[in-house]
Amino acid sequence: MFLVNCWYVAGWSAEFSPGDLLSRRILNQAIVLFRTQDGIIGALEDRCCHRAVPLSIGRVDGNIIRCSYHGMEYDVAGGCVKIPSQDAIPRSAKVRRYPSHEQDALIWIWMGDQDAADIGAIPRQTQHNDPNWGWKSDHYHVDGNWQLLIDNLMDLSHLPYIHPHTIGGDPETHFRAGMITRRTENSVSVQRHMPNSMPPPTYVAAKGFTGRIDRWQEIEFQPMVLRIHTGGCDAGTGAYDGRREHGFSMLGFHAITPESDHTTHYFWSVATNILKDGVLDLVFEQTGYTFCEDQEVLEVQQRRIDDEPLRPLLDLKSDAGGNHVRRWLKELIDAEARSDSRT
Amino acid sequence: MFLVNCWYVAGWSAEFSPGDLLSRRILNQAIVLFRTQDGIIGALEDRCCHRAVPLSIGRVDGNIIRCSYHGMEYDVAGGCVKIPSQDAIPRSAKVRRYPSHEQDALIWIWMGDQDAADIGAIPRQTQHNDPNWGWKSDHYHVDGNWQLLIDNLMDLSHLPYIHPHTIGGDPETHFRAGMITRRTENSVSVQRHMPNSMPPPTYVAAKGFTGRIDRWQEIEFQPMVLRIHTGGCDAGTGAYDGRREHGFSMLGFHAITPESDHTTHYFWSVATNILKDGVLDLVFEQTGYTFCEDQEVLEVQQRRIDDEPLRPLLDLKSDAGGNHVRRWLKELIDAEARSDSRT
Amino acid sequence: MFLVNCWYVAGWSAEFSPGDLLSRRILNQAIVLFRTQDGIIGALEDRCCHRAVPLSIGRVDGNIIRCSYHGMEYDVAGGCVKIPSQDAIPRSAKVRRYPSHEQDALIWIWMGDQDAADIGAIPRQTQHNDPNWGWKSDHYHVDGNWQLLIDNLMDLSHLPYIHPHTIGGDPETHFRAGMITRRTENSVSVQRHMPNSMPPPTYVAAKGFTGRIDRWQEIEFQPMVLRIHTGGCDAGTGAYDGRREHGFSMLGFHAITPESDHTTHYFWSVATNILKDGVLDLVFEQTGYTFCEDQEVLEVQQRRIDDEPLRPLLDLKSDAGGNHVRRWLKELIDAEARSDSRT
Repeated sequence: MFLVNCWYVAGWSAEFSPGDLLSRRILNQAIVLFRTQDGIIGALEDRCCHRAVPLSIGRVDGNIIRCSYHGMEYDVAGGCVKIPSQDAIPRSAKVRRYPSHEQDALIWIWMGDQDAADIGAIPRQTQHNDPNWGWKSDHYHVDGNWQLLIDNLMDLSHLPYIHPHTIGGDPETHFRAGMITRRTENSVSVQRHMPNSMPPPTYVAAKGFTGRIDRWQEIEFQPMVLRIHTGGCDAGTGAYDGRREHGFSMLGFHAITPESDHTTHYFWSVATNILKDGVLDLVFEQTGYTFCEDQEVLEVQQRRIDDEPLRPLLDLKSDAGGNHVRRWLKELIDAEARSDSRT
Repeated sequence: MFLVNCWYVAGWSAEFSPGDLLSRRILNQAIVLFRTQDGIIGALEDRCCHRAVPLSIGRVDGNIIRCSYHGMEYDVAGGCVKIPSQDAIPRSAKVRRYPSHEQDALIWIWMGDQDAADIGAIPRQTQHNDPNWGWKSDHYHVDGNWQLLIDNLMDLSHLPYIHPHTIGGDPETHFRAGMITRRTENSVSVQRHMPNSMPPPTYVAAKGFTGRIDRWQEIEFQPMVLRIHTGGCDAGTGAYDGRREHGFSMLGFHAITPESDHTTHYFWSVATNILKDGVLDLVFEQTGYTFCEDQEVLEVQQRRIDDEPLRPLLDLKSDAGGNHVRRWLKELIDAEARSDSRT
Repeated sequence: MFLVNCWYVAGWSAEFSPGDLLSRRILNQAIVLFRTQDGIIGALEDRCCHRAVPLSIGRVDGNIIRCSYHGMEYDVAGGCVKIPSQDAIPRSAKVRRYPSHEQDALIWIWMGDQDAADIGAIPRQTQHNDPNWGWKSDHYHVDGNWQLLIDNLMDLSHLPYIHPHTIGGDPETHFRAGMITRRTENSVSVQRHMPNSMPPPTYVAAKGFTGRIDRWQEIEFQPMVLRIHTGGCDAGTGAYDGRREHGFSMLGFHAITPESDHTTHYFWSVATNILKDGVLDLVFEQTGYTFCEDQEVLEVQQRRIDDEPLRPLLDLKSDAGGNHVRRWLKELIDAEARSDSRT
């Protein structure tokens, strides 16, 4: 049900000062994430090999993590380095270690075959390091399957219905606009341009638009993150020719990390090019409010699907992007299943 | 486990002003009930055919109900009449519609074969329209199987034990009285007369009895409602010859609508012939209190049965009425199962 | 999964004044415990034979317990002695009775074959009757399997880690000390002596030790209770020769009564030989605090085990005592299973 050989976001760098630790379930596996005194991130299975007590109720001491029950100590590689009650450390005294990497303010984790973990393949989020962008982030927990969240983000035709008070705007504006969906080897993208349209409430509040704008929504998916660039410029000032610096831009980063079959970690950030007058706080607050609206819908949607899990759904044209992603991920997951069965 | 071809109470008319909607699970199916601007009641499956989002989190607009996710609109017949993001409406864009009918202040729903729905077969509750009766109603949710609730109502020998402070009274009074149980083609009835007996607390409070009364309990079941006529007259004044207007009467209406195997909607009203001095409020309040007492017992009873669902129970003589109902409903449900397997 | 032919603690005598009753689940069976007006303890299945309503929501009246639904009455032997609505009492009108016995301030119950119940085999807790000891008791409910609790108590090498602020003390002190494990026909015992060691916080607070002590931990298990004698004397004053009256002693009594596969009743008391200056209150309070610390660990441990119930665990040397108990109980439970299959 999950794509295993994939880099997933496991957390935000800022969650972990040296000595911090927490338990997080990813792809249905309980993992303890921690930062050593030396600043290294550890990602181990959250289960002491002795009596299965979660290491996450223990503590980090220097560069080891100590089980709270009988004091066994593990290093970031998962090896047991001390058993207080005896001198000998059995060869089997160890816990699974997950490859992890810290980059662009994010903690990434690799859940698959350890030999296949290539940190060069981790998606970059350069705006997290770029002084031209201001950004803020959060972590939501969604009681719904990860695919529902991807569907939601790949088809923004829901904006006028779920988010009329923030980023939605008039339905006709959305549906007059054409939608271009593109599948490449490494991504699926959806683009919708809304020339000469009325700006939605958040845009007006952020940028002070007084007239019509040329608006864009550009979505790009790669496993398992989405980048959504939305924004607008005064109509006719070149937004569709690549001149957007004088307008209002929001870069949304959305990392979808399955927690279990029915629950999902949603790590998101929003960046904006307008760095004054509290615009970032405004954008962050309204985005957070908006995503809460999505979350409520996804959770009742999941419960209704659970009533009759095998019952088919009706596809609309606007599902093109989401369905490209579904097919692509199904291919990847099926390929992993075939590969596993050969092993 | 359920009788499907049957009119069930789905709600009270007063729950729905124009534009109101709510989700209610009936026979384990999620249903959205709503009233259009024109006053018509709609009963549709509570699941948009597009992405399975409950229609009940959407809104009624004029005479349609709109999904909150991507704005699809349905009429009361379940047909999709608008898809905002595209012009074409696929033939399969529809949701199941349940026949419904509003009568006697109640919303009735038919859960079975649509062609078999005959509104002429809906049980009447004329006291809800009769100025000679005052009445009030409520809707309880019971964490127990529907049959336990029917058992409870068909055997009032529990009154002295569960309800000593309201409608119970002295155990001996109940058990001295004979009980007459009758099965007809269309109903099961149980009658208990208690001549020259002490009135229970609620009777005294409502009518001001100062001496002994001729008391009656007359229960009639038809799928899936019970009518319970209880009351009393001063002893020897003709109660058992049909002259009861000068006494105190309570007409209980009890609609039993299974929500799931283990939970039940209990729609009830109580009517009284005494229309002054706050007697109706008193009767309603004490009846509500009484039914809460029943509810508490039924819920722990259900949990104990769940421990060992197949373990047999011991029948007493007073179970005659309830057992008639159980056998009758089993015949009907078995007949439906045979009919389904032929289809 | 349970040892059935065994005396279990079902409650504390002090929980039951005449007329009191409560429901308690033991070995996954719902039991009503009550004390009659004559002071006798009754232990019956908590399920009326008529309609399965728990007797525990009824009431004790004189020497019977009355069902709250239709008034059926049972004596302490489980026989129905009255059915209000009819004269005849069917032979099958009865509920299962569990042998029970009150001794040493405890209510004991026998869950197995009634003919095998021998009250002479009930473990004695004489300190509960001995004026030389002061004691207090409590009942904890643990969301974890009973074996995890026994493991916890048989291996006190967790003390320095889970309980550093009360009875723990320095890890090195524990691990320098040797551990002697002994399996006899009727018990498993673990002994750890810590001569000339620093006293832990509770010891200092209770006895006012100012220097080093000779400390002991002596654990004895028999199904399904543990006695743990811990304490210390000023170093070199004869603690290991049996002269301990001048020191500080705590006698812990721990009765492990499975509620279900995953939940456990934990009835415990602690007794001390120091009867002045509020020492008993101090010891009781710190012991209760300590056991809460254990409870928290056991509950997360259980959840982690539930993730992968069949995955093996790594044994350490300090598990010797707990593993003796596990093997012994497995032998007993397997023998019961073989005996059942022959019947």
